[in-house]
Amino acid sequence: MSTDRDVAALRERMHELSALRGAKDLLSWDQMTYMPPGGAHARGAHGSVIDRLLHERMVDPGLQRLLERLRTHADSLDPLVRDEVSVLTRDVELAARYPSALVAEVSAHGSACFEAWRVARERDDFGVVATLLERSLDLTHRLAACHPDAAHPADPFIDAADEGMSVALLQPLFTELREALVPMVDAVAERGEPRAVLPVHRSGEAQLALALRLAVDLGYDVWRGRQDLAPHPFATRIGHGDVRITSRVDATDLQETLFSTIHEAGHALYEQGLDDALDGTALASGVSAGVHESQSRLYENLVGRSRAFWRYALPHVQAAFPELAHLDVETAYRAVNRVRRSLIRTDADELTYNLHVIVRFDLELELLAGSVSVSDLPEAWAERYRRDLGVVPNGAADGVLQDLHWYGGAIPGHFQGYTIGNVLSVAFFDAARAALGDLDDQLAAGDFAPLRAWLREHVHAHGRRFRPLELAERVTGASLRVEPYLGYLRTKYLYDTAATDAVA
Amino acid sequence: MSTDRDVAALRERMHELSALRGAKDLLSWDQMTYMPPGGAHARGAHGSVIDRLLHERMVDPGLQRLLERLRTHADSLDPLVRDEVSVLTRDVELAARYPSALVAEVSAHGSACFEAWRVARERDDFGVVATLLERSLDLTHRLAACHPDAAHPADPFIDAADEGMSVALLQPLFTELREALVPMVDAVAERGEPRAVLPVHRSGEAQLALALRLAVDLGYDVWRGRQDLAPHPFATRIGHGDVRITSRVDATDLQETLFSTIHEAGHALYEQGLDDALDGTALASGVSAGVHESQSRLYENLVGRSRAFWRYALPHVQAAFPELAHLDVETAYRAVNRVRRSLIRTDADELTYNLHVIVRFDLELELLAGSVSVSDLPEAWAERYRRDLGVVPNGAADGVLQDLHWYGGAIPGHFQGYTIGNVLSVAFFDAARAALGDLDDQLAAGDFAPLRAWLREHVHAHGRRFRPLELAERVTGASLRVEPYLGYLRTKYLYDTAATDAVA
Repeated sequence: MSTDRDVAALRERMHELSALRGAKDLLSWDQMTYMPPGGAHARGAHGSVIDRLLHERMVDPGLQRLLERLRTHADSLDPLVRDEVSVLTRDVELAARYPSALVAEVSAHGSACFEAWRVARERDDFGVVATLLERSLDLTHRLAACHPDAAHPADPFIDAADEGMSVALLQPLFTELREALVPMVDAVAERGEPRAVLPVHRSGEAQLALALRLAVDLGYDVWRGRQDLAPHPFATRIGHGDVRITSRVDATDLQETLFSTIHEAGHALYEQGLDDALDGTALASGVSAGVHESQSRLYENLVGRSRAFWRYALPHVQAAFPELAHLDVETAYRAVNRVRRSLIRTDADELTYNLHVIVRFDLELELLAGSVSVSDLPEAWAERYRRDLGVVPNGAADGVLQDLHWYGGAIPGHFQGYTIGNVLSVAFFDAARAALGDLDDQLAAGDFAPLRAWLREHVHAHGRRFRPLELAERVTGASLRVEPYLGYLRTKYLYDTAATDAVA
Repeated sequence: MSTDRDVAALRERMHELSALRGAKDLLSWDQMTYMPPGGAHARGAHGSVIDRLLHERMVDPGLQRLLERLRTHADSLDPLVRDEVSVLTRDVELAARYPSALVAEVSAHGSACFEAWRVARERDDFGVVATLLERSLDLTHRLAACHPDAAHPADPFIDAADEGMSVALLQPLFTELREALVPMVDAVAERGEPRAVLPVHRSGEAQLALALRLAVDLGYDVWRGRQDLAPHPFATRIGHGDVRITSRVDATDLQETLFSTIHEAGHALYEQGLDDALDGTALASGVSAGVHESQSRLYENLVGRSRAFWRYALPHVQAAFPELAHLDVETAYRAVNRVRRSLIRTDADELTYNLHVIVRFDLELELLAGSVSVSDLPEAWAERYRRDLGVVPNGAADGVLQDLHWYGGAIPGHFQGYTIGNVLSVAFFDAARAALGDLDDQLAAGDFAPLRAWLREHVHAHGRRFRPLELAERVTGASLRVEPYLGYLRTKYLYDTAATDAVA
């Protein structure tokens, strides 16, 4: 009976937390899509207050006592509530390490830093944001100091985004990857080759409409979502029944619009696929950055960059863009899989992509360790690009300023998820293929429902009920390993003659 | 010294209140513009929590004690802070009358009711929303019961929107207006005449671009604002530096787009014209519904429906819409001022507009008094339209369901501001004309800066520093009277031969 009352009290608290999170997510979505420039200052102030209110609620002693009582009666709890109590206990422990004032400071600084980064990037001038980035580093150290027990100062941030991961666990995996990828890139990439494009003449509107149509075919539900333009595409869950995607458009190249949309639709399918029973609980979101990215990359690469998908997609593309009528499936497949040494992570092909990520991961650790200073960062960046990717940025805009991730308050813990996601995307897709049989035929026929249903059942529906590594093991029957992923890349880029032709 | 500390504490509290209000305003803006249908349920829940958090902060005993201490030392306060303390004291007294749970209930019900209204209006079926409206009436009675001292149960709601106004003060003014307007409409309106349009063939995009260009010429700053589409146009201040307008587009008639945009730009000029020193204080908004509406109607009617304005606007209109090349200024002026007996308030001309408002005001009072029941409302509406306007709705969609105002939680207190605004718009414009001299020449030359500067100095900059009736008296040198407004209408519609021709 008293447990019932405690569960009701938990629901009440989660109701308030969900509302504040929904408001914060909308403030962020709007800042990235529609907010006028003059609104930036107030938006930073507002977001910072909401972050502080959220944090105060998370560290409220009443919530901690409530969770303690519920843990004491764990056996009598509904399994869903038991899982929620477990996840929330971890969230509260993490939040409780940080003083609310520091959280508000990081949030307010993050907003100012983000706006300065926009200007810096536009002017191709790292100097505009360097001092703010030094303050971000300082704030990061202050946050790290709240984890005196951490083996590496970056570990708490990595663990917060990708539970169970650490520098010690990731560095060997990333080294194995880098050592395998650099020679693969040497074998297939043409130096200085221009990016392959699907050249189109019609408006961005027409591109967006086509991309959204494909996303809807993949299963994205626009009754419970919408598509907008954003210079840095993202997907976000504003609330149950409201999961939005954003797309980036290159007026002359359909690839940018298609793949940014399919990528974000992959994230959105995860959030739209959450079990309805999770609504309003602490379990109602994707479980980690890496698992989230596994879904976006699965749809972007394993589906969207497959021959089977292009059998389905090409007629739609050509109906919308008659200027592409000359394309056949094989030519389209080659165009969207061309490997080249490039400067921009988000434009990178599958083969070079992780090299971009690993550069950033390593530099984050070096910044935190002090072996690279903020003022040395552009030079260190150029050096790593020269070594790993064989290209050197022309300036800061296509170098150290290209990604927004370091310009939002605290520094590390953002990038590892991209590579974890790539590795998991292949593991999950292999498992789906084993279960679904003629998956390629289904994709070629535009029959995406079985794949979506399988992913929903095995990944999406659970939200945060299983921890990331536990979920991966349940779905794939194996621990996190890079070898199957490398095998996929080798098969696609080294052994597939057609593909090799395409990129040679 | 301790006063300094109290002022700092006040700033801190206002900072939090501003953030929560900004978040709530964005949640509302988004609900009216971009939110997908599936997001409605969560949005209602989130908005209701934010409303409750705002209310809890307003009624916090700590704030009440703080205000009391500041009032005790009023003489030593900066005049701005003194004014803020005074306004906030009134806000707190009003908020403290309502239990937080009731506030959250009204908010949650309002969101559900709003979504039901959308469906009801689409289906032209009052039945869809009737039960919810009965609940709104019940909630309104419960709110009214928190004001046992009110002379009329609607007075607290009217006073909250338009401080200093009451049923006793407004009824004689509205009666005087109605008795003058009905025969004027009889004299100039053609029964059954179709709405005059500015027929255009190009897209809504082109219409919106033109309308925004005119709004920018009027002074609307898009660095600190933006324009979006909304079925029910509104303007909103999300934060300092972020004041947005929305427009409604009729694909075949430029009038709808132009006047909805100019109207909302009038509201936005008010909010953008607030003195920067008010940012973050309780004074940072328009002072009342009626004064706000005076600015939107001043720009829509006194400026936008004047011959002088069309001398400036017509070349821009014709450059954007060559299909209107045959228009001359006089023909355009007549088209935008045609008087007709119509069913839809927002489409109404200046002469019939207030009759639409007075019907609603009277019906609100009758609902509250119980002399009209919710189920009788469509019939009572039709009867009043037959009597006052000489037309009868075809159904609920062009009758009792046309406006959203009654479908947002509580019922009365919304409509009187429209007529107060019309009356004040003429009083303010006359005062501006007296001060600015050749105002018509300025408008015809597209030189809108002097008018804007005058309004800013005398109305906009002050925010809530002067109470509505006090502000009106400071600006116009007279108390609120309908006679000058009626004089303006008589001159324009009865004595101006050209205009009379136009509508005969």
